[in-house]
Amino acid sequence: MLPTIKWDENKVIMIDQRKLPGEEVYVECQNTDQVAEAIEKMVIRGAPAIGVAAAFGVALGVLSIDNDEKLDEEFARILHRLEITRPTARNLFWALERMKGAFERNKGLELSHLKEKLIQEALDIEAEDVETNRKIGFYGKELIEDDQSILTHCNAGALATAGYGTALGVIRAAFQEGKKICVFADETRPFLQGARLTCWELHKENIPVVLITDSMAGYFMQKGEIALVITGADRITRNGDAANKIGTYSLAVLAKEHSIPFYVAAPFSTIDFNLNRGSEIPIEERDPQEVREVGGHCLSLADVKVKNPAFDVTPAKYISAIITEKGTARPPYGESLEELNNVKEL
Amino acid sequence: MLPTIKWDENKVIMIDQRKLPGEEVYVECQNTDQVAEAIEKMVIRGAPAIGVAAAFGVALGVLSIDNDEKLDEEFARILHRLEITRPTARNLFWALERMKGAFERNKGLELSHLKEKLIQEALDIEAEDVETNRKIGFYGKELIEDDQSILTHCNAGALATAGYGTALGVIRAAFQEGKKICVFADETRPFLQGARLTCWELHKENIPVVLITDSMAGYFMQKGEIALVITGADRITRNGDAANKIGTYSLAVLAKEHSIPFYVAAPFSTIDFNLNRGSEIPIEERDPQEVREVGGHCLSLADVKVKNPAFDVTPAKYISAIITEKGTARPPYGESLEELNNVKEL
Repeated sequence: MLPTIKWDENKVIMIDQRKLPGEEVYVECQNTDQVAEAIEKMVIRGAPAIGVAAAFGVALGVLSIDNDEKLDEEFARILHRLEITRPTARNLFWALERMKGAFERNKGLELSHLKEKLIQEALDIEAEDVETNRKIGFYGKELIEDDQSILTHCNAGALATAGYGTALGVIRAAFQEGKKICVFADETRPFLQGARLTCWELHKENIPVVLITDSMAGYFMQKGEIALVITGADRITRNGDAANKIGTYSLAVLAKEHSIPFYVAAPFSTIDFNLNRGSEIPIEERDPQEVREVGGHCLSLADVKVKNPAFDVTPAKYISAIITEKGTARPPYGESLEELNNVKEL
Repeated sequence: MLPTIKWDENKVIMIDQRKLPGEEVYVECQNTDQVAEAIEKMVIRGAPAIGVAAAFGVALGVLSIDNDEKLDEEFARILHRLEITRPTARNLFWALERMKGAFERNKGLELSHLKEKLIQEALDIEAEDVETNRKIGFYGKELIEDDQSILTHCNAGALATAGYGTALGVIRAAFQEGKKICVFADETRPFLQGARLTCWELHKENIPVVLITDSMAGYFMQKGEIALVITGADRITRNGDAANKIGTYSLAVLAKEHSIPFYVAAPFSTIDFNLNRGSEIPIEERDPQEVREVGGHCLSLADVKVKNPAFDVTPAKYISAIITEKGTARPPYGESLEELNNVKEL
């Protein structure tokens, strides 16, 4: 298991994903602000991993409370600091709501016991995430056949989660079952999660991987070299529209044009039943320097105007199936996601 | 006019396009081999510019011939050295064929006169290319309306030609006519011609430009922010299939999905009437380091497996029109290109 994030003696340790694969450096967070900044600066990224980090960030915040005067106020401040880190991924808000629930249930306890309860809740979220991903892998691997090449975008792997991964969890599960597969990894500009993280993860487990630029996906589909596409998601609305890393929508359109299945793998915590359609999802616009530079090397004019939306929305009609820990939903998603939502965990 | 390439006192001077926009450095070529290497290493690139460079490369080669024993043999060697530089762009072979024609017509002359004739032929190719681009601009600007945003890929500008540009020539012509336009420039990984060259060219002429990553095109189309797409081409077959920089095909599919016109702007020398369809076009596979690195900065694992096709083929069915110096061809291209081919130059 790769060490994305862990709770260690009242501190949170994360691998600095900005420095991979060149350097394996760990960052230590001792308070809520440090966790919030790590999320904002993408030391840690990936919707489920952000959720886990936020839960730990809440636990660290509560740990630092000295007395239970103004407890509600203090807790609200902790939540707010984490809520404003990144707007798109549902899992962040889901984890914060869950931590808030644990707080509400336990705030009558003695402060030291409340602290223990909230640390335990965050550890539960972390452990459940890995278990969830294994179940996603279990359901998803059935969609992959022997000798297939699979295109993935960004990194929806162990590094995007507490471990194992969503899209890469499905790929791992198929590979571990002995299926001969090859992964095409889009480099995923501007942040290069595919080139840096997906290649690194797959290489560590000897899963065959080929790095391509984002612009090459259509070419390999046209040549018949890609059998299916599988990505993660940052937020899925009740109708099945899915926000994910910028570029995902283009792949979904290309997949449809080539009659290639396009799958989304995500935990149920990614689904936002409060939103009816993808156009309601807030899309984060990030620093233009991410587009202007790579590794400090300026690619264009230093002051060129840039747009840098970090996500796009793939309408449900392009998605062949959504793979969750409760099973695989097929269109129409309005019904199938609701049905799975009513399933109690197996 | 930007100084892409020029003939200067029996030498060829090119701006080193690998170093733009950071440095404006000029490379001097004194013989055929140096020109061939400059084409191979992409000191100069862009189909029409490669054609002009190859013509100058032939002229330099002939200049170095001391006596007319083995003249045919020597000329064949010069042509061959330039033919093997890059396989995809038609204009390279077109220019070499034209230089060969001039050689055949004039090889009975005294050697010094033959040399003059071949230098003049190369200078004619250069001058005609600029004139051709202005005509492409004249026909193409009609396809752009006031207040439109135009997506372009790679660099089909002054730097890709002897001057003025094909796709960017159309954009220049529309802008010079007073149309308020904005250009979205794809960065065009791996070689970043969009980020480095297109932004630089447009910025010099105050044409509004926004840099995006290749993966963002679908997002902006979905949002209704792109009115049309225009690119150059490296080779067009008689049925209208067009090879162009990798990623062009993906844009064409996206344009079709969003009912946005997709235009190709190219001189007639790009059309290969010997080929019936795009699948017959040889696609160059370039050095994997172009994908692994940016500016010497390694993006992924140092030894990650990479594929690096430099071009893709957009089938004619995705192309709304092909803009040439003889007029604008519309589908079916088998007929319209043939008709234009029979038009004498205006």
